[in-house]
Amino acid sequence: MAEVQKKLKVVVSLDLGPEVMPLLYNQPNLDVVVWPHESASGKEWLLKNIAGADGCIIMLFEKIDAEVFDAAGPNLKVVSTMSVGYDHVDLKELAKRGIKLGNTPDILSDSVADSSVMLALMAGRNTKQATNVVEKGEWPGWGWSPYGLCGPQMSPNSPQDIRTVGFIGFGRIAQATLARMIGFGYTRCVYVARSKDPARAKEIEQTIKARHPTLTTVQRVELDQLARESDVLYILAPGGPETYHIVNETFLKQMKKTAVLVNNARGTLVDSDALAKALKEGWLWGAGVDVVEGEPNVTVDHPLVKEPRCVMIPHIGSATWESRIGMGTIAVQNLLAGLAGIPLVAEVQVSKV
Amino acid sequence: MAEVQKKLKVVVSLDLGPEVMPLLYNQPNLDVVVWPHESASGKEWLLKNIAGADGCIIMLFEKIDAEVFDAAGPNLKVVSTMSVGYDHVDLKELAKRGIKLGNTPDILSDSVADSSVMLALMAGRNTKQATNVVEKGEWPGWGWSPYGLCGPQMSPNSPQDIRTVGFIGFGRIAQATLARMIGFGYTRCVYVARSKDPARAKEIEQTIKARHPTLTTVQRVELDQLARESDVLYILAPGGPETYHIVNETFLKQMKKTAVLVNNARGTLVDSDALAKALKEGWLWGAGVDVVEGEPNVTVDHPLVKEPRCVMIPHIGSATWESRIGMGTIAVQNLLAGLAGIPLVAEVQVSKV
Repeated sequence: MAEVQKKLKVVVSLDLGPEVMPLLYNQPNLDVVVWPHESASGKEWLLKNIAGADGCIIMLFEKIDAEVFDAAGPNLKVVSTMSVGYDHVDLKELAKRGIKLGNTPDILSDSVADSSVMLALMAGRNTKQATNVVEKGEWPGWGWSPYGLCGPQMSPNSPQDIRTVGFIGFGRIAQATLARMIGFGYTRCVYVARSKDPARAKEIEQTIKARHPTLTTVQRVELDQLARESDVLYILAPGGPETYHIVNETFLKQMKKTAVLVNNARGTLVDSDALAKALKEGWLWGAGVDVVEGEPNVTVDHPLVKEPRCVMIPHIGSATWESRIGMGTIAVQNLLAGLAGIPLVAEVQVSKV
Repeated sequence: MAEVQKKLKVVVSLDLGPEVMPLLYNQPNLDVVVWPHESASGKEWLLKNIAGADGCIIMLFEKIDAEVFDAAGPNLKVVSTMSVGYDHVDLKELAKRGIKLGNTPDILSDSVADSSVMLALMAGRNTKQATNVVEKGEWPGWGWSPYGLCGPQMSPNSPQDIRTVGFIGFGRIAQATLARMIGFGYTRCVYVARSKDPARAKEIEQTIKARHPTLTTVQRVELDQLARESDVLYILAPGGPETYHIVNETFLKQMKKTAVLVNNARGTLVDSDALAKALKEGWLWGAGVDVVEGEPNVTVDHPLVKEPRCVMIPHIGSATWESRIGMGTIAVQNLLAGLAGIPLVAEVQVSKV
């Protein structure tokens, strides 16, 4: 008689949908406990259900800390987050307990790059005001005029008109965004990045220039220069204390009056009050944000929601079927690999972070 | 004593703003009659003021026909429209009277290409619903979920994922839009165009492929094939009877369910009721329109305004400072050249149209 194998318990903090959940349900050795909605379970549910779990799949919305690990107990081998970022996971506690952490990078580089360019265009072209003219039924009386709703042009207007795209963070998503900006005629790229190593900057410059022969400049710069030179500035760096309010009044005051700022990373990188003030006073032209500090508690009296030149969408920068199904699939693969004790598809090197 | 030269009368149907009007006011031999607002004068004003005019600058909003030419009288030598399109001008009447027509092409190719890509991204990524979540204060209770507000990804998700961009009309604006789509990873381009000449199609194919080495396909096709193959379809062709409702139920039924349609040309090319039905029934994913048949009389009960996946902006596809000041400047240059009897900067060959 075969030995009855004890099932492994996995806790999934949101329903991953009909394309992904079968990848879990089809595993005969798993006991799957899942929050039965396509939305965040909340930490209370997680704490109640995680006892004895061998692994869990989570999202950005629950802080995964000592309290959760204590509730889970000693079986927990792997935490798999369906996200690129992992600010919400206490890495020290993970390291201390020898728990592996998987994330889902790469698969959303293209969807986030797409939405980054979209936000830049929307902010420059005043779509918040423009769509409101239509949606409030004001078009008939609006009165088209040659300069009505005009904004700065994202693309250069002639070959002599040299434009610079700037990046805070210059990883995969930023580089995918750069590829798109080249199609819009951008020839200069400046960025700030965590690494201050000149050899690394040189290597990046050579790689990127080889990939995009029309680029004349790819340069790691200081924050001041980044603010001064960028026509479009993309924030695509991790959150956390190192980048907290990296875009503040000092930074914004140095920007071009025609520049557009996009935050498609984490809300904490931008001081919202400073950005609202900058927009109101015309230090820069416009902003497009997918993330805001304190989200989702952002209501109509939020200073950025009130700004006509701030376009805001509710953290859907990677919301394409391709990316999200892909993220769910990798999250399951990471979980299964962690349970099996083999290398994860995408593993955060916890001890090195 | 010098002969007193009779001043030339020019009528300008809208205030072209502080960057452009001085180009007229600084001409000592001109008597400038201008509608003193940055909005359309209306035909009544034009008819009242145009008597005896030697030239006029107009916009899209007044039908320039025999009634206007009769009111102007025999001095009228040049009509300068601050637009690329000239559907609003009766070309037969112009030709009969030997009046020259100037327009403002090229200068807005980049601004319209930018807004075309913007509309495609917005339609795919559900920005109408997404911005409403924020602007109506619903974000706190909205409940992020992995597939919430998901749409099809504009860019390919892997090198094996081949995407096709389609164009109705393949002139300068379409080609500028194509350049941008290549940055998003598009490798196939299909189009329909007025010319049916195979030699011309071959020439275009060679020129475009030389310009964009990563394109594998640049092909003039029939409408059916265009509808079937396009992942993003841009309408960037002139209006008029030849293209009237070229996008109708038959066309829309053949489109991919994940496709996005952009109309940044003229409202008459699209049957609005058919498009609204197509969106409601899911024949295609979404639509982004800068122009609508019957605009600006588009109110909240318009079938397309009611569709959550139709993004609409009020005919601001070229609304950048660069383009609009450039268009105004060329409109003045065309007018002055027409008055002087020299070739216009950009002249519509009236007899050949």
